[in-house]
This record gives sequence, structure tokens and C-alpha cells, in this order.
Amino acid sequence: MLPPVTGVRLAAVEAGLKYKGRRDLSIMVFDQPAQVAGVFTRSKCASAPVDWCRTHISKGVARAMVVNAGNANAFTGQKGVSAVEKTASAAANAVGCPLDQVFLASTGVIGEPLDVARFCDLLGELAKTAVEDNWAAMADAIMTTDTYAKLATRSFDIKGDTFTINGIAKGSGMIAPDMATMLSFIVTDLPVSAECLQSLLSKYVKTTYNAVTVDSDTSTSDTVLVFATGCGGPGDFLPIFDVSDPRLEVFSEHLADLMQDLALQIVRDGEGASKLIKITVEGARNDVAAATIAKSIANSPLVKTAIAGEDANWGRVVMAIGKAGEEADRDRLSIWFGDVRVALDGARDPGYSEDGAMAVMKKQEIEIRVDLDLDQGSATVWTCDLTHDYIAINADYRS
Amino acid sequence: MLPPVTGVRLAAVEAGLKYKGRRDLSIMVFDQPAQVAGVFTRSKCASAPVDWCRTHISKGVARAMVVNAGNANAFTGQKGVSAVEKTASAAANAVGCPLDQVFLASTGVIGEPLDVARFCDLLGELAKTAVEDNWAAMADAIMTTDTYAKLATRSFDIKGDTFTINGIAKGSGMIAPDMATMLSFIVTDLPVSAECLQSLLSKYVKTTYNAVTVDSDTSTSDTVLVFATGCGGPGDFLPIFDVSDPRLEVFSEHLADLMQDLALQIVRDGEGASKLIKITVEGARNDVAAATIAKSIANSPLVKTAIAGEDANWGRVVMAIGKAGEEADRDRLSIWFGDVRVALDGARDPGYSEDGAMAVMKKQEIEIRVDLDLDQGSATVWTCDLTHDYIAINADYRS
Repeated sequence: MLPPVTGVRLAAVEAGLKYKGRRDLSIMVFDQPAQVAGVFTRSKCASAPVDWCRTHISKGVARAMVVNAGNANAFTGQKGVSAVEKTASAAANAVGCPLDQVFLASTGVIGEPLDVARFCDLLGELAKTAVEDNWAAMADAIMTTDTYAKLATRSFDIKGDTFTINGIAKGSGMIAPDMATMLSFIVTDLPVSAECLQSLLSKYVKTTYNAVTVDSDTSTSDTVLVFATGCGGPGDFLPIFDVSDPRLEVFSEHLADLMQDLALQIVRDGEGASKLIKITVEGARNDVAAATIAKSIANSPLVKTAIAGEDANWGRVVMAIGKAGEEADRDRLSIWFGDVRVALDGARDPGYSEDGAMAVMKKQEIEIRVDLDLDQGSATVWTCDLTHDYIAINADYRS
Repeated sequence: MLPPVTGVRLAAVEAGLKYKGRRDLSIMVFDQPAQVAGVFTRSKCASAPVDWCRTHISKGVARAMVVNAGNANAFTGQKGVSAVEKTASAAANAVGCPLDQVFLASTGVIGEPLDVARFCDLLGELAKTAVEDNWAAMADAIMTTDTYAKLATRSFDIKGDTFTINGIAKGSGMIAPDMATMLSFIVTDLPVSAECLQSLLSKYVKTTYNAVTVDSDTSTSDTVLVFATGCGGPGDFLPIFDVSDPRLEVFSEHLADLMQDLALQIVRDGEGASKLIKITVEGARNDVAAATIAKSIANSPLVKTAIAGEDANWGRVVMAIGKAGEEADRDRLSIWFGDVRVALDGARDPGYSEDGAMAVMKKQEIEIRVDLDLDQGSATVWTCDLTHDYIAINADYRS
């Protein structure tokens, strides 16, 4: 259970868009204007709600956030734009704010027109009934193929004043480079400007959401928003406007930690996943090259299926390194599965023990480490294995 | 059954390297030196046999080609280099030629040392017993997870003289961007120089093997070799040395056609595949951009699983277009599944019929066509669907 964050009220309801018997429409209401920052998909075919958010995020002020699950309102043409405008208008009326202080996210099937009439009527009542102590309801309502709700909270002190950060997330298509959609919403009561939030979000998204959601930058709808209600702390707390303000440090740490927590919750719930895989590449020419190689391993269906089968098939790791296109010297490579070094100087480790490697592969969390022995570049990414259940989930998701 | 090609003899034997009860070692012997051209993987971790072939291909002369299945001799360090040298030496002794006229290919598991002592002893006898009318045996012996042997033949006339091209191929990990290994060997009796062969091979590989074996350029062992024995036609046939020689035209056509045939045989046998998928992208900024987008669609696990489930989920096609990183205007996009236009101008086709799309999805061969409506660039790639069987095959391949 998450504690409340002063300044944000939440509510969720069953709108019956796609799912029956579960809540699929939710709202966050900020009675006082909140500061907001966001990062979005880099897809060339972004959804209508992403376009909307991107247009308004630079103003940095939010009064409401509306999310629906079951329909992504992506690739829906002019109808999609109109659906977004109608939803924003209904939400703006409900909370009494300008249109550009409403943020929107939709997740679910792509290409089906979204009939917003059904839920525009619900938003007024939803905004009224929203309460602070209701994070679990919203975390439930934003799910699609997720098997559990994803929530995290952190609290921290600044000179004796205690503040809170809450976050929720959804996403389960993680296992594929073209995951369905990752959404995450984070709220703190710290008085901090949108500019500071954006700076921290943009920095930490690289090593958290973007390090687990391999190629998540390319889905149509990925959205991470961070809100600051500013309602926490004593009345005389001076709001933080400057990224060099030393008070930001402790918030940064806890924000990064919470983002990491949510990101790993997503990857653990990867569609059909049975194991969490951590891939660390060291000794690359630079950090970008290391990340490219780590993602090449993480994205390889042959690596993922081998791990599902508990097979210490490090030859497939070599193959994935080779295909990444970054500099690698076959004869300097070393590879570890857990604490078992399987390859050394470009060949099987002379002390390789199949039993030792087998024991590692039986675990729920598998760590693969690669040392390229070229330079100082390093990166870590997380993924999950590729199982029969992934096929079962995705072969009939739409129907 | 393939007809013989004059000038090449073939043989295969059970060496017992990995497989029991089937042939896994094979040889092609060219009693007269043949002209040879090749293309190889672009992996940064190429196998020892690929390194060997790359070193010697520029000399353009072949007397023997040795292939083993079950062990790729990739990522085997100095032992791998030594295994290649021993094999080449045994083959050179067997046929009586210099080392650099022996070409080698290995396919199978990566990272296990290849014990060549077992089959170096066999090569002498194998070379002796090789006969011209034995293509099926070699096509069988180069398979790994393939479910059938892949063979093709073409014959053509040049001014009344008839020539032949035979080809064999193996490869079945096609469904994944990091497929196990694709090997293909083609032999013609046309008197044509290695330089001409290389020019044609490099040209047609782009629209054949490289258009089906999505990212095949990145496996450790991919190898395509084309040999010309020069033994066909009458004694006074003037060998073709010049790529502008008009006599090369008819050969080019038939070579391209045979390469296409073999490439499609590979994709049809993709691991676990139940359907062949042809993806055509038109209206892109240029042909390279079209190919990038087509491969993005072909590589998408979510597209592949939808097709396995016979689900006309064109939203996932949109997503894969968006993630390709090439220019695309959401609102100009049109998409067809077979002859059913499912999307028009960035939204669902107003005349879209679920029944029509369903009928297309039931077929064994699915065609997806995308029109970006930007410019004249186009490309076609082939792939197959992603099924439960893919997981079953790959979760325990090594063990």
C-alpha cells in the first residue's frame, strides 16, 4: 500500500471500453497546479495522446492526468485527435482548468477508433470522488496484459522535513523490442520546478526505463510523467528552482531508486517471463557501444529462449555480441553466467564446468557479464526470457 | 533430384561429431580447378572457417569444399584456427591441391572445440568415393535444425549450348535476427571467371539471401559460395571474363532465380514456422529506408506472433514502422494484408472488413504491403511466423 502524497487525488472506474469486470479509466487530480515533466516514445508513429502531451509538456503545469486501458488511440487518424480533444475538454471541465493542463495516456490495441463518449461522461463524477489514498486503484486500472500492478514509494528528509515520492507503472510487452506500451506516473509533494524535474527525469530514464524496456523508445505510446504537487513540507519551505540546489540531491537519489524499482517490476512481469536477466557489458570502447552490445544480447530471441530452457548456451551470447556492429575482438572476450566464467580469451574457459553453469541457469535471476577487454565503456540492461507463454499471450491478444 | 553438374563430385558420410545416424561431413571435389566467389557474415565474431575462406577467396580458385554440421567451430580460439588448418591440410592431401584452394564451412553449436581428428581421417576416402550424381546426399549432410534439405537447379542456353546451375542451402534459425547459420553452395558448369561470379553474387545476395535472412549478416558463420567448374559447353566455348559480356545475361537471370528459390526454401523452413510472410514496403524516401522498415516489421516478435495466431493485428505493423527510425508520416500510411486494405491515410480503412482480413490470415502465405506515400523507395523481405515450436526448438538446442 502506498501512502498518500499531499496534493494529488486519484480515482478509477470501469468504463467498459474493452475489459469487463475491471477498472480501465482513471484520473489523477491536482487541486493546486502541479509542476510536470515528461519523456515520451521516439516512435515515428506516436499515438494521439503522446502528441497531445508533447505539445503541452513544456508549459510544465498539470491539473489532471487521465489514463485509459484497452485502446491505445494510436493510428486512429483525425478521429484520434478528436478523441484526445474531447477527453481533455471533459477533464478540464471536471477539474476547472485550461485544456493545456490536462495530460492523457492511452494503452491497449492500436488502430481501433477510441469511443470517448462512453467515458467523457464519467470524468466529472470521477474527479469529484477522487481521494488521496487511492494509488492501488489507479495502478490496477492502467494495466493491460500485466499480471500484477506496479507501485513503489520512497520518503526522504530535507533538513528535517519529510517528503514522499509515489510511482506507478504498467508494461508487460517488455520482452519484445516493440513492447505494447510502458506507462509510468510519479508524484512527489516536494516543491520543485518542472525544469528541475525534467532534468532529473531525462537523466535517470536512460539507466532505468530505457535500460529495461529495450527499444521501448519505439512503441507508439510510451509515456513517463513526473509531477510535483509542492504541497509537502512546511509553509516556509522555499521551492527548488535550480538544478544545482544542494537540496535536490537527496530527492535525485530517491527518484532514481524509485524509477529503477518500477522499471524492474515491469521487466519481471515481461509477457510470459519466467526469469529476470541482468546483462552487464564492460571493457567496451565507450558506454554507448557497451549499451548497444548489451541490448543486442538482451534482444536476441536465441539467447532468451536458451535461458527459458535453462541452457547455458553462451555461444548465442557470442553471436549477439558479433551482430551488434560495435568493436569487439573475438580473442579478448570473456563471458560469465552468474559467477561461472564460461569463456576466456575468445574460447571456452579451460576450467568450465557444466554443472556450475547449470546451477546458475536454474535460478530465477540470471546475470550475464561480458568483458570486451578493449577500454572502459560499460552498461547494464535488464530483460526476461522468451517462453511459450509469450507466444500464447501475443498470438491472440487482439481477438 | 538435381542433375549432375560436370566437373564437381560430391560425397557425404557420418562422422559422428554430434548427430547419430545421419551424415554430417561432406565434400565437393573439383578435379579441374574451379572459379569461386563468396559472401560471408559481417559478424565481428566470425567463425574460424569464415576467416579461412575470407583469406583465400580473392585468389578465386577452388579444388575442394568441406562442410561439417553439428559444430560451428566458432569462438573456439586458437584451437579453432588449428582445426581449420588441419581440415584444410587433410582435404588438400585428399584431392592433391594447395591449401588455399580448399574452402571450409562449419555449422552447429558455437563455442565447443571441434575435434577434427575424427574426420580428417575420413576425407581421403570421401574424396575418392565422391560422384557427380550425389547432390541430395550433400544437401542432407549440411543440415542442423532444418526439417528438409534445400536444393534447386536451373538450366539455360547460350547460343545453343546448354549449361546448368545447381545449388543447395541450409538454415532454419531464420525466424530470428540472430539465426544459427545459413550456408549455401552453388555450382555451375559455365566457363565464367571468379570476378564475374563475385560481381553477380554480391549484387543478387541483397535481394535474395539477405532479404530473407533478416540480419543474417550478423551470425558467426553465414557463407554463400558460388563455383564455376567451366566444364560445360563445347570445347571451343570462350570463357566469360568480362561482366559486360552479353552472354552473362541469361546466366545472371537464372542465378538470381535460383538464389531466390533457395532463400525462400530457407525461410519456409524457419524454426517452428507455419506461415511464409512476404513484406513489401513502397513509397519510402529511398530503397535503403524501405528495406530498414520492411526488416523492422519482419523482425517484430509481436507481428510474427500475431500472424502465428492468424490475427490481422495491423496495429503491430504500424508500431514496427514507427520503431524503424526511418521517415514515416503516420497520416499518409496505408497497409494491406493480402488484397485487403486494412489502413488508409493513417487510420483504419473505412471499408475494413474483419471477415476479409480473417480469410487472408488463414492462408499459408501472407503478404503484407505498406505504402508510405512519401517517395519512390521500395523493398521486399520474407520472413516466417513465431510459434510455440520456435521456443521448443531453441530452448534446448544445445543440450
